[in-house]
This record gives sequence, structure tokens and C-alpha cells, in this order.
Amino acid sequence: MKKPLILITNDDGIFAPGLRKLIEIARQLGNVVVVAPETSQSGMSHAITVRAPLRLRKITEEKNFKEYSCNGTPVDAVKMGEQIIVRGKPDLVLSGINHGSNASVNIIYSGTMAAVLEATIDGISAVGFSILNYSKDADFSAVDEYVKAIIVNVLKNGLPEGICLNVNIPAIKKEDIKGIKVCRQAKGRWKEEFDERIDPHNRDYYWLTGVFQNGDSAPDTDSWALANNYISVVPVHYDFTSHKTIPEVKKWKMKV
Amino acid sequence: MKKPLILITNDDGIFAPGLRKLIEIARQLGNVVVVAPETSQSGMSHAITVRAPLRLRKITEEKNFKEYSCNGTPVDAVKMGEQIIVRGKPDLVLSGINHGSNASVNIIYSGTMAAVLEATIDGISAVGFSILNYSKDADFSAVDEYVKAIIVNVLKNGLPEGICLNVNIPAIKKEDIKGIKVCRQAKGRWKEEFDERIDPHNRDYYWLTGVFQNGDSAPDTDSWALANNYISVVPVHYDFTSHKTIPEVKKWKMKV
Repeated sequence: MKKPLILITNDDGIFAPGLRKLIEIARQLGNVVVVAPETSQSGMSHAITVRAPLRLRKITEEKNFKEYSCNGTPVDAVKMGEQIIVRGKPDLVLSGINHGSNASVNIIYSGTMAAVLEATIDGISAVGFSILNYSKDADFSAVDEYVKAIIVNVLKNGLPEGICLNVNIPAIKKEDIKGIKVCRQAKGRWKEEFDERIDPHNRDYYWLTGVFQNGDSAPDTDSWALANNYISVVPVHYDFTSHKTIPEVKKWKMKV
Repeated sequence: MKKPLILITNDDGIFAPGLRKLIEIARQLGNVVVVAPETSQSGMSHAITVRAPLRLRKITEEKNFKEYSCNGTPVDAVKMGEQIIVRGKPDLVLSGINHGSNASVNIIYSGTMAAVLEATIDGISAVGFSILNYSKDADFSAVDEYVKAIIVNVLKNGLPEGICLNVNIPAIKKEDIKGIKVCRQAKGRWKEEFDERIDPHNRDYYWLTGVFQNGDSAPDTDSWALANNYISVVPVHYDFTSHKTIPEVKKWKMKV
């Protein structure tokens, strides 16, 4: 059987240990093309680069494995991977393994998941992986078999049109992981706390910082799964329509 | 009755004519605070600035009207507007009027709509407006009464928790506008066409460009409404979960 062609990217950049782990796992399952950002692109969400030229840098080219970095965002990386390197559709797009959670509302800020959604818009099966440890030195030793099981299932079962997966992994020892839970995105938000400072020229500036507030601890959520030592798998789509609100807004008197 | 406090931003930047038009309309309905990006932030989606300091510049401060620019993204602008200027929750957040369509899949790339979604995450009613004309010199003369009618309805009826509105306006004369249609986001995608060039130092570079492909012309979509001279109003949420796919993925054999 022909090996699947797997395109891999991330948002922590080409040198991130999480990307290296994902490449290692994917190479056991297929031929791999990597196009990943040169530098960290955390919090870049679905941004695209329209006002600056994009470049690709070849890093490795060997049998069944090619690796490039690009100077753009994760979404740029997927577009360049498909159009310039693969010149067509890969069988699967993987993103991550992100250093830090993309559960709950984090998905909306995430470059990792934006890359996955971009592939989904293009009709390609795609999965994003994240581990709940922001450290560059995050321990990925527990993840191999779980990540592999999920990829194998996606390759075998396929995903419905327009659907991808958001996988989050608790930062715990392998023997403490209770299994995989398919769930929904929990409600939550970041409460900003701008760190206000004065520069040497006496002008104010601010660092964006914040704390995550989980507003939803129902047992069918990703937040609950992760807090209870499960790997969370959320099927994700990019239809932003609130279908159930349409009839309500239709009742409004908006004639001019 | 106390006038509502309206926070306004956009992604085309503080000098965009579409922002000026939205400010003009909003000032007829409430007290206005503007925090908008210094420069164009189109295509920045839900990006946040975490690796650079943020700054605010005061432009105008008069009775019931304050205006600031910020050096960040539209989502940064909303966060700074709420936390640093308003120091609490405004009654309404408006974004736009964007120069260019945010209908169909464009919503995912849009800084305009990301600002609206950010306010929604924070529990504030919010509406994004866009006109289907990318030109800086877009004609906004037809929009006043429609934009006002929508804002008045949002202030009067409120929006359900977690729901905002994505409003797109066809670039046609007022007498040709047939009315307002509440609808769903059409399926569509951008087909990339990288423009490959060689720089004076003989290195390749690429400009991201593309053509929009509408894959969905059903009469309940925003694309259909706009093509048929209606203003489209899509109720939008930020739950990315594909709830109907959960039972299907639960059937997979993902035991390790």
C-alpha cells in the first residue's frame, strides 16, 4: 500500500521539541514534508501574511522526508506546503505538538489549530496536538502511542468533510493517563492583566498578560477531561454560524 | 435614559474611512470610545501581541468621545479598550466598517470579526460591519440607516450569551439594496496562487495572493444574500466544536 503523504507544521517554530516529536512519530506512518515557521508564532491565530514577501528555506531533503522553514505564520506555512512544496493535496496535515494548552477558548488564539483549520478548509484531513506544558523542555515521553493511535484512526476512518481534530494531552506520566476522551470545547476566557511600565524615555507601555478562567466544568468538556487525566479529542469545524440564533434575529424589526 | 457606551475598533487602521463612518453613526446613538490599530491589520485574524510591548496614543478626548490608536492587532485593541481605557465593560463593541467582504470563510482571516469575537468572549454584545469594496475610497453613503437599524436592534433586543453578528453590505446604491437578510455563513475557500519572484540577490520570494471560490450558493447563505443585493446578517458564535461529529469519533478504537 502506498504510504500516506503527511504535511507537518506548528506554531512554536522549526526548532521546537514538540515538532521534532511529531515528525518522529509521523515518519513511522508515512512520507513526511515539514514546512514550519522560522520563529515562534504563538498567538498568531489564523493570521496570513499579505503585506510582506514570503520565503522558504530548505533544511533537509532525503528519501521520503523534506523539511523547510518559512518566514510566515502557521497558516502561511500550510498554504506554502500545499502549493509550493507538495504541489497538491497531502493525505494528512498534522500540527504541533504545541507547547501549551489549546483546549477551551485557547483554540481561537492558536496558530497550531489555525494551521489545522486551514488544511480543513482545503479539504484535507488534519489534526492538531498540544501538551499542557508551556516549557521548551516539556516532556513528550508519554505521548507516542496515543498520538500514533489517533493518527492511525484518522488515516483509517477519515474525517467528515469540514471536520478536524483538536487533541490536548495532560502533562503527566504515561501510567497516569487514563485514556482518550472525545469531548466538546469548554467555555472559558482569558482575563487580561496588562502589565503597565514606563520606558527610559518616560512613555507608558504595556505587556499583555492574563489568567485563564474556566467557566465550564461539565464532564463532557475538554477542560474536564484534561483535569481528570484524559487526553481530550474535540471534533472541530469552521462554521461560525450560530444556527439556533437565526430564527431569533429574524424576528427583529430591521426594515429601513 | 443613560446613553450606551460604545467601544469601536477595526482592522483597516485608525485612518480608514469605514471607521470614520462607523464612528459618525455610533455617536448618534451613544458615548463612544475608539481604540483602533495604528496601521492596517487586515488578515490578522485573532492574533494577539505577546512578544512585543503595546502602546496607546491619545488622539481626541472630548465630552462623550475618546479616541486612541494602538500599535497592536484588532484583538489587542479590544483588550486595551476594555482594560485600560473603559476599565470595565462597554455596553456594545462595534468593528469596521471593513473595506472588503467578511462573508463566508473570510470571517476566519478577518481582524474585524476577531475583534467582535473577542468582545463576545468577554460577554459584551458586539457587531462587525463590512462593505464589499476593498478600495480605500469605498462609497459608504448607502449604509447609514441600515447600520443604525442593526445597532438599535442589538441595543434594544440584546444578543444571546456568546453570540455576535457579522454584517456584510453589498457595494451598491441605496435604492438597489433590497433589505436585510439573516442567514448562515456560506461554504467557500481561497485558492492560493503564490506569485513567485526573484529578488536582486537571486533568491526566490513569494507574494500570497488568491481567488475566492464560493462553494455554496444556497439561498440561506450570506454569499447568496449579497449576490442578490441584500445586506447579510449572520449570528456568530465561537464554539468550534462539531457537536454532531462527537458520536462518530467516539466509535473509533483509540485504546492504547
